[in-house]
Amino acid sequence: MANDEFSYIRQWTGRSAGQAGDGLVVGIGDDAAVFSVSSDKEVIACCDAMVETVHFLRETMHHTDVGYKSFISNISDIAAMGGVPRFAMVTIAKPAAWTPEECSQIYDGMYEACREYGVRIIGGDTVSAPDALHLSVTMLGEVERGMALLRSAAKPGDAVFVTGTVGGAAAGLDLLFKVKEHGTPMQYDPYWEPLVRLHQRPSAQVMAGRLLQQASGIGALNDVSDGLASELWEIAEASGVAISVERDMLPIAGLVREYAETVGKDAVDWALYGGEDYQLVGTVQGTKAEILAQMFARQGLSFSLIGKIEAGSPQVFLQAPDGSSKRLNKDGYNHFR
Amino acid sequence: MANDEFSYIRQWTGRSAGQAGDGLVVGIGDDAAVFSVSSDKEVIACCDAMVETVHFLRETMHHTDVGYKSFISNISDIAAMGGVPRFAMVTIAKPAAWTPEECSQIYDGMYEACREYGVRIIGGDTVSAPDALHLSVTMLGEVERGMALLRSAAKPGDAVFVTGTVGGAAAGLDLLFKVKEHGTPMQYDPYWEPLVRLHQRPSAQVMAGRLLQQASGIGALNDVSDGLASELWEIAEASGVAISVERDMLPIAGLVREYAETVGKDAVDWALYGGEDYQLVGTVQGTKAEILAQMFARQGLSFSLIGKIEAGSPQVFLQAPDGSSKRLNKDGYNHFR
Repeated sequence: MANDEFSYIRQWTGRSAGQAGDGLVVGIGDDAAVFSVSSDKEVIACCDAMVETVHFLRETMHHTDVGYKSFISNISDIAAMGGVPRFAMVTIAKPAAWTPEECSQIYDGMYEACREYGVRIIGGDTVSAPDALHLSVTMLGEVERGMALLRSAAKPGDAVFVTGTVGGAAAGLDLLFKVKEHGTPMQYDPYWEPLVRLHQRPSAQVMAGRLLQQASGIGALNDVSDGLASELWEIAEASGVAISVERDMLPIAGLVREYAETVGKDAVDWALYGGEDYQLVGTVQGTKAEILAQMFARQGLSFSLIGKIEAGSPQVFLQAPDGSSKRLNKDGYNHFR
Repeated sequence: MANDEFSYIRQWTGRSAGQAGDGLVVGIGDDAAVFSVSSDKEVIACCDAMVETVHFLRETMHHTDVGYKSFISNISDIAAMGGVPRFAMVTIAKPAAWTPEECSQIYDGMYEACREYGVRIIGGDTVSAPDALHLSVTMLGEVERGMALLRSAAKPGDAVFVTGTVGGAAAGLDLLFKVKEHGTPMQYDPYWEPLVRLHQRPSAQVMAGRLLQQASGIGALNDVSDGLASELWEIAEASGVAISVERDMLPIAGLVREYAETVGKDAVDWALYGGEDYQLVGTVQGTKAEILAQMFARQGLSFSLIGKIEAGSPQVFLQAPDGSSKRLNKDGYNHFR
């Protein structure tokens, strides 16, 4: 790391100084971080990148949003294993066009996510980039030994559920693209503000994941980063099962449906292929589905049963209310291509 | 991750399939990886990025070298804590100009390092990049509880040591730049081949780090990624001490000195400011320095005593044989700027 970059990273991550405790032995400032893991836990590790022009534009995300969302997408992966996020490491590749102050705002968003989800930044790397800004975040969490929830555990007879609502992040992005085409970036009718928030400031479902990790009869679990269709396909392939979901059971918020009608788009398409909702989709033994729904209701967490797992080669079907059925494509899509 | 990218990563990391065991509970293919840590160990975590045009050029590194070196720089950080590397996660941001086959060669180099150092790739992210190729590698290792070696533990009276030789990687890069200017990339007099290898295929000093972790009287430890001067400054600042090293004690290989003379450069400059040698520099109680030197000799590992730690505000001095002394700058330098 060149020296000017080193002084940047000290400035951006100064908030992580003197942070030992809670199992952290060595934080930022040595060759590597060191932490302990209690003997009844296992470590969960994932990483997820965000690249300017590929995952976001200056016109669609505030700098703080970029940092915040880069953490949410990773925390969501920890939640999808039924785990608790603990530590993060950040690699930032900074092009000349991004000022140190703008990068500092990215870290502001990261530290916001840190406060909300109990995460600490313990290391990283800061390098120059020739063109676009790149963020690569590593998230380290923990889960009870042998108790991580996997994609591969769905069984015929399971019910399929999803937390929260889906399709909202894609609606928000659709709006931001429209605004970008027609007017000043970031200005839109405040009525649609909640949609924009769903795109820029998603939540990770750590509480729901913990509830599922402790519940009985849970099968597979995945987070909705690439759209329901793609996530269901991953479960179908990893578990070797067929999945059937009912179109009219998909939890799509009223405002999303209203916005879709206004702009002549299909809200169900956003739910299936939009992605970035960071909800959890999974399966539970059919006989335990109602008990699970009640557990979620008692915690004030949103929960919907949307379909079922069947024996058969990996497939995902969408059932219409008239009983007709269509096979869903595997693909999420890349919004910025 | 878009679907085409997902199929790439399956292809590149197919060698990691079915790899459970040795504490790995969940490898590539779920939202996150899961591994266990034995109760007498702590986790070491670090990450290090390599960016095309900033850290390497197509003309100075084969694709396999890029992958190999991206792992070595991280394994070196684990070695500098006295630890053992275990698991890696790779984020690759691929521009259109890099073919899937070229990227696969990057992974070839990574897997080569995996075999040599006992590391397994357990996850990552694959995204598109608009311009330059970016690699961000996270390395996870382990060390005996409470026994990590830190930068901050140097004390007055300690001797300063370095493993192996330094300055060679910078000599190799100097040669590659000359070749790039004057002729076909990658063609040079085979006599200098060892220098090029030092730049393209450095080693990480895991065995030396383990020896130091188990030895008595060890103070601070750092790896030489940015040049001796910069690394010594980090120890001086973290430990609150002054450091004095003797110019004529710096272990510089004969071939490096010979090449420096041939091209009219200063080999000592390369040792102090070149970096990327991935040797270990550290301190040991003065009374135990000779015992440590003998331990290294018995293991067939190269080891040099180069100076001493003194009380005083953080400073680094270079002593000439005539007794004169100059204060060293803190900076490593960025070769590709």
